[in-house]
Amino acid sequence: MSVCTQLDYQYMARAIRLAEQGLYTTSPNPRVGCVIVNEDKVVGEGFHIKAGGPHAERHALVDAGELAKGACVYVTLEPCSHTGRTSPCADALIAAGVTRVVVGMVDPNPKVSGRGIEKLRQAGIQVVENCLTDACEKLNPGFIKRMQLGKPYVRLKLAASLDGRTAMQSGESQWITSADARRDVQTYRARSCAIISGAGTVLADNPSLNVRISDLNFEYLGEVRQPVRVVIDNQLRLSNELKLFSLPSPVYLVANKKRSGDWPPHVEMLELSQTGQHIDLEECLVELAKREINEVWVEGGAALAGAFMQAGLVDELIIYQAPIFMGENTRGLLDMPNITELKQAVRWQFESHTRVGQDLKLILRAL
Amino acid sequence: MSVCTQLDYQYMARAIRLAEQGLYTTSPNPRVGCVIVNEDKVVGEGFHIKAGGPHAERHALVDAGELAKGACVYVTLEPCSHTGRTSPCADALIAAGVTRVVVGMVDPNPKVSGRGIEKLRQAGIQVVENCLTDACEKLNPGFIKRMQLGKPYVRLKLAASLDGRTAMQSGESQWITSADARRDVQTYRARSCAIISGAGTVLADNPSLNVRISDLNFEYLGEVRQPVRVVIDNQLRLSNELKLFSLPSPVYLVANKKRSGDWPPHVEMLELSQTGQHIDLEECLVELAKREINEVWVEGGAALAGAFMQAGLVDELIIYQAPIFMGENTRGLLDMPNITELKQAVRWQFESHTRVGQDLKLILRAL
Repeated sequence: MSVCTQLDYQYMARAIRLAEQGLYTTSPNPRVGCVIVNEDKVVGEGFHIKAGGPHAERHALVDAGELAKGACVYVTLEPCSHTGRTSPCADALIAAGVTRVVVGMVDPNPKVSGRGIEKLRQAGIQVVENCLTDACEKLNPGFIKRMQLGKPYVRLKLAASLDGRTAMQSGESQWITSADARRDVQTYRARSCAIISGAGTVLADNPSLNVRISDLNFEYLGEVRQPVRVVIDNQLRLSNELKLFSLPSPVYLVANKKRSGDWPPHVEMLELSQTGQHIDLEECLVELAKREINEVWVEGGAALAGAFMQAGLVDELIIYQAPIFMGENTRGLLDMPNITELKQAVRWQFESHTRVGQDLKLILRAL
Repeated sequence: MSVCTQLDYQYMARAIRLAEQGLYTTSPNPRVGCVIVNEDKVVGEGFHIKAGGPHAERHALVDAGELAKGACVYVTLEPCSHTGRTSPCADALIAAGVTRVVVGMVDPNPKVSGRGIEKLRQAGIQVVENCLTDACEKLNPGFIKRMQLGKPYVRLKLAASLDGRTAMQSGESQWITSADARRDVQTYRARSCAIISGAGTVLADNPSLNVRISDLNFEYLGEVRQPVRVVIDNQLRLSNELKLFSLPSPVYLVANKKRSGDWPPHVEMLELSQTGQHIDLEECLVELAKREINEVWVEGGAALAGAFMQAGLVDELIIYQAPIFMGENTRGLLDMPNITELKQAVRWQFESHTRVGQDLKLILRAL
C-alpha cells in the first residue's frame, strides 16, 4: 500500500478547493475536483459542475491534453467504473495514459465502491487511496449518507435570542438575528437539495423558501438550482395562493391523507404515515432520498424543530444567536413535550462557534 | 509629553502580569504591579498583595535596593501622594532617586487624580503617562467604577441550555452546565468583593455562596478573602439555619422593611427602598460601594437576573451555555415581564466566546 507524500496532500487540497466550486450546482451528483500533475507541474484541473455534464476527471483531462500521458491524477472521489450519463472515467484515465492516481475517498455507493480503483490497478496504474479522506468526505455529507443509508443529510436551522426565544407572544419576530446571519442562511439553502418547513411557518410568514442568489458571495460556472420546497401540512391548511407556489421550483406537500384542490403542476403530494402527533419524518426523509435529495435544510417553527430533534433525525445543528434578551412573554425554540426530567434533555456537542456580524453562529453535532 | 517606547510597553506588560497576582486578595484596594529597570535590567518587582500591606512600588523598591537610584519605574496605577495606611509612594520613589516613572493610568479617584504624578515631576522626575492604559484599567473595573461613579462593577452570571432554559418545571437543574463551567464560576466569585443572590435561590438550593478555594488554579501570596454574601429577601423568608449563615464571611440581608430574629453577628441588615416590584437595586449597589465593594457577582434566579437587566445595572454578562436542549416544560433565564414587543428587547454585544469544557462561555457588554 502506497502512502501519501507531502506533495500529494498539497495537490489533493487543491482538488478539494476545486470541488467546492460545485457546491451549489452538482446535485444530485457529488462535488468532485481533479488535478493532473506532470513532472511537478499542474497540467490539468477540473471539477464537476452539473449533473449530465462531464465529471471532474473529464474536465481535467481535456485541460491537460497530451500532458496527461505519464501524469499523476488527484481526484477527491474514486473515478467511476460504470456507464451512466457519461462513459466511465476510469476508462478515460487509462486511455489517457496516466501512471498514478491518488484518490480522496472510495465511492460511497456500496454496490460500486472500489471497482473504479480496481479497474485502474488492472491497467497497471499505481493507485493511492484515502488521501485527505475527512476533508473529501465533508464535500458530500448528503450524497454519502444517501448512498450508504438511503436518507439525506439533515441540517436543522435555529435562530433565537440568547434566552432562547424566537418570537414575541404576538408572533412578532422580525428581526431577531442580523442581516449577516440571514445572508449566511442563504448559503445553506443554496447548497441544500431541499428545504423542509411546516405549514405553520408558511401561513405565518408566507415565505418563498427559495435562495436569494444575490446574497451568495460566489462565482458560478453553473446555474444555482433552487432547492425543492417540502412543507409538512398534516392538517391541509395551505392554499395555492401562497407565495411559495408562485415560484417554479418543485414543492412537495406532505400530509398523512389525500388532498384535493387545484394545484400547479410543480406541486407534488407526498402521502406518508403518522407516528404519534406528527407525520413520520423518517419516512419523509426516505422518500426524499428516493428523489435524489442529498442535503436537507430544516427551517421552521418550534413544533417542526422539536419533532426532528426528538426523533433523532438531525445530523447537524446550525444556531444563530442574537445578543438580545426577550424575556418570557415569548415563544420558545423547541417544542419537546415529552421532556419532563433533565435526564431526558437532548445532549449535543459544539463543533464550532463563530461570529456572523453581530450574532454568534454555533454548529453542533449529535453526541 | 513623552511617548512610550517598545521597551516601555514590554516592561509595563510585565507590571500588569504582576498586578494580576493580586487578583483575589487586594480588595478593597486596586490590583497594582510595579517593575523597576536600571540600565535595561529588571532590578525590582512587586505587586500589591493585601490592603494594609505595602503598595506595589514599596515591594519593588525593597527588591531593587540601591539599584533603584537612577532607575526607571513602571507602575500600572499612578503612585499615591497621600498618607493612608502607608506613607505616600511618590515620596518613596523620590527618596530612592529614580529618574523616570512610566504610569499605566492615573488614579481614578477624581479627588487625588494627577497629584502623585505632579509630585514626581516637581521632584524633577520624568513621568510618562498612559502606557497600556486599557489593559491597566482592566485590572480594576470595580475599583475604578466605585471611585468614579460610587457604584461597584456588576457582572451577571447566567447559565442555561441552548434553548435558554435553566431548570425543569419541577426545579430540577443539577447539572445543566459542566463541572468545568462551574469551576470557572469559582474564579469570578473569588475576584468579586460581593456575591448577590436572591432568597428564592437560597431557599431552593441552600448554597454557601462562598469560594471553593480548591477550585482555583492560582498561587497565592495572600489569603483569598471570601466575598460578602448579599441576599435580597424582601419577603423576609430566610431563617438563620441556612448553610449560608454558618460560614464566617459577612452576609448582608436586604429588604424593604425591618427584620427581627436571632442572627449571627456577621449578618448585617440593609433596609432599602422599593421601586415597583423589586427592592431598589441601584440603591443597593450604592450601599455596597459605600462599604468598599468593588466588583459584584450576581448569581441568582430568573427574577433577580431579569430585574438587574431591566434596571440597566449590569456592566458585564457571563453566560455559560450547555449544549443541551430542554424544551418548554422548563424555567426560563430572565423574568422581564415588561417586555411585550421586540423593540423593547434588551440588546447587548458579544465581547468573546470561548469553550469551557463541553460548554460555551459568552461574555457580553451593554451596547
